[in-house]
Amino acid sequence: MDTKDRQEIEKIIDDRKKAHHALLLKNSEVYKTFLEVERKAFSIGALGKNHKELIALGISIAINCESCMEWHIHQALEAGATEREILETIEVGIEMGGGPATVSSRFALKALEYHTQEKP
Amino acid sequence: MDTKDRQEIEKIIDDRKKAHHALLLKNSEVYKTFLEVERKAFSIGALGKNHKELIALGISIAINCESCMEWHIHQALEAGATEREILETIEVGIEMGGGPATVSSRFALKALEYHTQEKP
Amino acid sequence: MDTKDRQEIEKIIDDRKKAHHALLLKNSEVYKTFLEVERKAFSIGALGKNHKELIALGISIAINCESCMEWHIHQALEAGATEREILETIEVGIEMGGGPATVSSRFALKALEYHTQEKP
Amino acid sequence: MDTKDRQEIEKIIDDRKKAHHALLLKNSEVYKTFLEVERKAFSIGALGKNHKELIALGISIAINCESCMEWHIHQALEAGATEREILETIEVGIEMGGGPATVSSRFALKALEYHTQEKP
Amino acid sequence: MDTKDRQEIEKIIDDRKKAHHALLLKNSEVYKTFLEVERKAFSIGALGKNHKELIALGISIAINCESCMEWHIHQALEAGATEREILETIEVGIEMGGGPATVSSRFALKALEYHTQEKP
Amino acid sequence: MDTKDRQEIEKIIDDRKKAHHALLLKNSEVYKTFLEVERKAFSIGALGKNHKELIALGISIAINCESCMEWHIHQALEAGATEREILETIEVGIEMGGGPATVSSRFALKALEYHTQEKP
Repeated sequence: MDTKDRQEIEKIIDDRKKAHHALLLKNSEVYKTFLEVERKAFSIGALGKNHKELIALGISIAINCESCMEWHIHQALEAGATEREILETIEVGIEMGGGPATVSSRFALKALEYHTQEKP
Repeated sequence: MDTKDRQEIEKIIDDRKKAHHALLLKNSEVYKTFLEVERKAFSIGALGKNHKELIALGISIAINCESCMEWHIHQALEAGATEREILETIEVGIEMGGGPATVSSRFALKALEYHTQEKP
Repeated sequence: MDTKDRQEIEKIIDDRKKAHHALLLKNSEVYKTFLEVERKAFSIGALGKNHKELIALGISIAINCESCMEWHIHQALEAGATEREILETIEVGIEMGGGPATVSSRFALKALEYHTQEKP
Repeated sequence: MDTKDRQEIEKIIDDRKKAHHALLLKNSEVYKTFLEVERKAFSIGALGKNHKELIALGISIAINCESCMEWHIHQALEAGATEREILETIEVGIEMGGGPATVSSRFALKALEYHTQEKP
Repeated sequence: MDTKDRQEIEKIIDDRKKAHHALLLKNSEVYKTFLEVERKAFSIGALGKNHKELIALGISIAINCESCMEWHIHQALEAGATEREILETIEVGIEMGGGPATVSSRFALKALEYHTQEKP
Repeated sequence: MDTKDRQEIEKIIDDRKKAHHALLLKNSEVYKTFLEVERKAFSIGALGKNHKELIALGISIAINCESCMEWHIHQALEAGATEREILETIEVGIEMGGGPATVSSRFALKALEYHTQEKP
């Protein structure tokens, strides 16, 4: 994997952590409660966590949110989604998003590579 | 179900059919090929058609595309998705779309009611 | 005020209530927790509720969410915002949204008229 | 043409006029200056008005702004654009917007029919 | 503050200046008139400049426009807005934008830090 | 032209190529068929390729898709569009997208400079 791409992804992960702590530190009640929304939205129900994460991934591709793609790909893999399932989610994203979604898919493929390859 | 809501949904279905025929009649090669994209994106693969339709539904809620919601709810139900799974997809949509997604969810609930109730 | 416009606004208000009850009835924990997010985001802090509602109105205009406009105009007025302040919020929306925001502003003006005129 | 579709389009045209006058009446300097932006953006330059209007139509389809579609289709036709050119603009819109743009295209086809048929 | 983050923000500021001069140099009448729209939209009226800038910030968060966030945070601070008010605007943005707005908020927090800390 | 800007544009071009090959390698039928949609949408018809590319550029500016801007500017120039025509497309984009489109226009101007200057 390209060093620049790896750094870009690791910056996203790092930024997420920093902002998470900053918002908790600043006592944002809205953020804290939103974390509850998140926890509940992705907990296992009639749909498994894997499929819920893939739904969120599809949305992330359609709206081109790179940090969201990285997060939901990671979560989906952790919940047992396969590379093929993620690729098919990207395909649904392309159907729903057209040309600009093919741009989003580039980042999604990088994030997929990042989270599936051996860490040094 | 409210008569006005029913009429609104049936107008969407009718409009879709009419435009479909008009674009075919006008020989839109782009549209015809896009239908192929659609067919392939939602055909069974590693993910079942039901889960692919729910991904598309999640996207539809996030971008507030009412016709898309109606279509993908119908397709999801036909492919075996349950009401509870559709509700959980709406919930992921709310997590990803915030307040405006609660607005989208209203239409999704109507379309769900329309496609699950007995037809007269 | 035009009867059709009035009916359109009252349908939005009615739809919101129905979906609110349906989601509570279906025991959507995500929705319930999101209501907490909402309550906290708009409660008085360093910014008054009026200014918070105007921020949400600006967003609603930029993304063309009619139900959101109706709701936040109503809430802003209840919190003491004036018609002039709402108009200036629409103006910021036009700067941030260009031509399509002038379309959104039409609905905002109707909702403003609806909520400021005498009810029969 | 379907009566309901005709009424929907005429409501859009009517709403545009009313809001135009209301914003002028309320002395919105932002709106007035924005009208200047609009006039300049669509005046003849290296690109003819017809092609500029088609660019705006493409954007309108991608973001699903119905009033914008109606307006720019009307303006494009007035500036000499043909039905075929408008159809090809819709096709570019579908490439750039995917499935949801096929929904937008339905309204665009109606507006095209409205503005090209004999008025009674 | 992280060097990379600082550089990213300074690149945005630099890019804005360069494009501003390029568009003026190329004699874009549309751009020049749009600057008038901007000036009028944010001038003091019934709402103070601070509140108008916070409305624009809320919109910027919801649509994830980083340059817009940087600009309106800077302008809001210059017009007397406090850090707490900016945080509460971010919170309204999260309510209106869901998960993807928590991503936007990361950049907003960086821009806030950039504009409130001592310059070397 | 700024080295950093040049590198940013070349990264986009490189990323596009890599993802193109990756999706073909992974046998994405959806992607392959979408390439057909693309080819047909931009082939010469009643509208020349140049004008179709400018329509897509306008959309790219309105939705702030940088890779799309770079691509469609390149394609438009190859199809004979002039710098002035691209500038006027940016102007239509500003009318349709407001302040955030002035941000998009910065990248468009860089991509224009990149594709019109002598290559070393």
